[in-house]
Amino acid sequence: MMHLSLDDIVGLTGGTLIRSGNTTVFKGMAALDEAGEDEVSFLGNEKYYQDFINTSAGVVLIPAGVPEYPEGAALIEVENPTLVFGEVIKHFVSSASAFSPGVHPTAYVAEGVSFDPDQVSVKAGAVIEHGVSIGDGTEIGCGVVIGAGVEIGENCLLHANCTVRERCVLKDQVVLQPGCVIGSDGYGYQLVDGRHEKIDQVGIVVLEKDVEIGANSTIDRARFGKTIIGEGCKIDNQVQIGHNVRMGKHCLIVSQVGISGSTQVGNYVTMAGQAGAAGHLKIGDKATLTGRTGAIKDLDGGVVYMGMPARPMREELKKQANLARLPKLIAEVKELKKKLAEE
Amino acid sequence: MMHLSLDDIVGLTGGTLIRSGNTTVFKGMAALDEAGEDEVSFLGNEKYYQDFINTSAGVVLIPAGVPEYPEGAALIEVENPTLVFGEVIKHFVSSASAFSPGVHPTAYVAEGVSFDPDQVSVKAGAVIEHGVSIGDGTEIGCGVVIGAGVEIGENCLLHANCTVRERCVLKDQVVLQPGCVIGSDGYGYQLVDGRHEKIDQVGIVVLEKDVEIGANSTIDRARFGKTIIGEGCKIDNQVQIGHNVRMGKHCLIVSQVGISGSTQVGNYVTMAGQAGAAGHLKIGDKATLTGRTGAIKDLDGGVVYMGMPARPMREELKKQANLARLPKLIAEVKELKKKLAEE
Amino acid sequence: MMHLSLDDIVGLTGGTLIRSGNTTVFKGMAALDEAGEDEVSFLGNEKYYQDFINTSAGVVLIPAGVPEYPEGAALIEVENPTLVFGEVIKHFVSSASAFSPGVHPTAYVAEGVSFDPDQVSVKAGAVIEHGVSIGDGTEIGCGVVIGAGVEIGENCLLHANCTVRERCVLKDQVVLQPGCVIGSDGYGYQLVDGRHEKIDQVGIVVLEKDVEIGANSTIDRARFGKTIIGEGCKIDNQVQIGHNVRMGKHCLIVSQVGISGSTQVGNYVTMAGQAGAAGHLKIGDKATLTGRTGAIKDLDGGVVYMGMPARPMREELKKQANLARLPKLIAEVKELKKKLAEE
Repeated sequence: MMHLSLDDIVGLTGGTLIRSGNTTVFKGMAALDEAGEDEVSFLGNEKYYQDFINTSAGVVLIPAGVPEYPEGAALIEVENPTLVFGEVIKHFVSSASAFSPGVHPTAYVAEGVSFDPDQVSVKAGAVIEHGVSIGDGTEIGCGVVIGAGVEIGENCLLHANCTVRERCVLKDQVVLQPGCVIGSDGYGYQLVDGRHEKIDQVGIVVLEKDVEIGANSTIDRARFGKTIIGEGCKIDNQVQIGHNVRMGKHCLIVSQVGISGSTQVGNYVTMAGQAGAAGHLKIGDKATLTGRTGAIKDLDGGVVYMGMPARPMREELKKQANLARLPKLIAEVKELKKKLAEE
Repeated sequence: MMHLSLDDIVGLTGGTLIRSGNTTVFKGMAALDEAGEDEVSFLGNEKYYQDFINTSAGVVLIPAGVPEYPEGAALIEVENPTLVFGEVIKHFVSSASAFSPGVHPTAYVAEGVSFDPDQVSVKAGAVIEHGVSIGDGTEIGCGVVIGAGVEIGENCLLHANCTVRERCVLKDQVVLQPGCVIGSDGYGYQLVDGRHEKIDQVGIVVLEKDVEIGANSTIDRARFGKTIIGEGCKIDNQVQIGHNVRMGKHCLIVSQVGISGSTQVGNYVTMAGQAGAAGHLKIGDKATLTGRTGAIKDLDGGVVYMGMPARPMREELKKQANLARLPKLIAEVKELKKKLAEE
Repeated sequence: MMHLSLDDIVGLTGGTLIRSGNTTVFKGMAALDEAGEDEVSFLGNEKYYQDFINTSAGVVLIPAGVPEYPEGAALIEVENPTLVFGEVIKHFVSSASAFSPGVHPTAYVAEGVSFDPDQVSVKAGAVIEHGVSIGDGTEIGCGVVIGAGVEIGENCLLHANCTVRERCVLKDQVVLQPGCVIGSDGYGYQLVDGRHEKIDQVGIVVLEKDVEIGANSTIDRARFGKTIIGEGCKIDNQVQIGHNVRMGKHCLIVSQVGISGSTQVGNYVTMAGQAGAAGHLKIGDKATLTGRTGAIKDLDGGVVYMGMPARPMREELKKQANLARLPKLIAEVKELKKKLAEE
């Protein structure tokens, strides 16, 4: 851990020193309400303004236009404190998972696997089946299982205990959090004589460049052809993606979302936590589904949706407002009946 | 990969050649909108009729009664194109996971495990504890952990990194997708002096014949006695089954469904994605819960349910229709009040 | 397995023998509707009263005040049959997972790991990275991966195939069910030039004393600082906890719940199955969220909430009652319009 001076932090953040404080050397970083005198913090959201006023942090990164300051702390003004704080973090944290190439003796690598052992890291207990290829700079974490014929690009990071089944493709810079499963069988059966007969699932999954998949998420292989997660998509934990889904670029799919088979998701789509989409739908570019929204029909792009079934947010909020008027309406009708009876 | 002639495909599918096309040798298969001249495709759902008309596939499997054909493609009429296409797939795909018996040197098999190493496959990094028995034709995937005393039938397929805890029972032809957990502790505590004291969970899980469990699904062991998943049930990814649940035969439980402890599920029950059932309920045979339906009371068999709380679909749709009339109703009451005031 | 006489069971349960039955030696235990003559059962919930009347169990633990008895069975009255039955279970089940210290030869333990191999059990295929410390009485299950610098307390039980990423902290008596993930990256990105740039997640997770985490649950590490699960919290399967969540003591978080980043959960909070909470909220002490309740604003303590968005249960039930009156209301308004038109 490298300590930082106040000047170091100004240089690192590209900010403007508004005020010096009591501390000259900083040893770590923490949230406003947790930080101590030798720690750096930041004001990234006005919700934390009170924490800012009360903070004991030695130095705080702040946006422009903050009306009042806490006592004691040095202050550095930056354009985007949340983003710039990331630079501070990078300096403070000597990553525990620094890349170290080589194949651990307890890992098993089958014959016919194509990679440069000086440029790839295969960690303890990992299993790599035959016919796999791995690009330079990629790390295969402990206990990871890579099925036969899988192709993995450069600079990927596969965390512990995840599974990539046979023939799937991971492009460059893909990140898999622990326990996720890529290429499980799609869910497909035909009822034959009272039994659900399995329909073979022989396609693959393709994770395009810069995709990240969260912990214990599952992406099913296509029945045939490909389940595709487009470039730059970021998928959170415990998300389920059905077979033959095609997702565009740069989508944000938050935790516990489920997308059923063959649905096509556009570019820059956001699906918040616990949302869902039925199968065989089309969701347009830049559509946003708020938390737990359930899509059961095609959704136009560029619209914010709420509710189950999904409606444009304005409609759903109006529906809820009308519902809130129901007690008054019931009273009014009672009154009207009384009046009419009196006449 | 074995190439197929048009005659081969007619033979394989048991269909009738309606029309020959331009291609005589076929090298693979794909969806209607993706297939090329040397590929086989199929029309399994009228939703894809437009893709069918525009397809570039070399040959298409079609049902009876299709009114119009695309140009160029050969056409073979079959009774059930989706099902028959599975036969084409089987021929084209030389499975990457062909069964190869034997115990991998990196696997660990404790003493007192009962199986025929010439008839069972234990793959790299698998762990099998003492007292386990395994039937012929079964494959234990890479990184799988089998707890003490587990019984596994014949021709089972346990994919990578799944866990079966102690004493659970898997009958013949059970399939576990990667990362699923069989026999985790049920969720049971008693509040004693302000602390939740764990109630021992000492039962087991029994997966009957032909059960399939999806990736990262979890099936809790019974408190005592058995959690039972009936013959032929197909459980999708990320499904949670609580302790002491008893599920009948041939149910379809789609992804992210949760079923709480001690609930009894009948035969041929369908629960669509993200549906749920509270504990200690009875769900009748052939009940269907649509996506995200929430059962909080017993449900009769043979009925389609919707909503939270679950209602027969007809009622729920009527409720939604009434809700849609609310704005008009509000306007009508306003008008009535106005009229009465005028009189 | 040690058999028990009727006197043994009376002694074990501290109960009162109400009636002797036909059996003198008991060999196991089971539910009322499954138990046979040589098995012990219990009446823990009046829902099972009919099963009790029809039971074939040899002896049943019952609460006070049961009006009628089944034929044949011995009966022992106890204060809390469910709780006391746990003692019977403990006697009958010789646990398959008895603690046996030592490091399995197929496990990998890096240099610089601090533990007493005579007091700790590291099972087959486990991986422990450098700088880890492990307290006495702790078991690291098969296939578990412990990242660098993790601290694990005494008497912890980590079941198979779970993952604890670098630097996280588990206090004493923590239990991890199979497949859970502690310390996955939080979900944080900034949109920069049309791409979601990852915000480093360099904090940790702290699981306080007596915490249990369910199978395939995921707890994200803090962006920086700590994600904290308070003492005695019991988290069920497939629960997702976002980065920087701080949970108080003795909460019950049932399966498939999701809690978004930075939300603060009080003490003794209950969240039932499939409930959710948006990010940056405060949920007060002893708040209860019923199944699938969705919190999108701060929630006061001591209140039972229902619905999406979450409302106090009384309000939500009233809303539902009003909704149920809607068909009648529509008819009444129609009638009023008719009457007014007639005048």
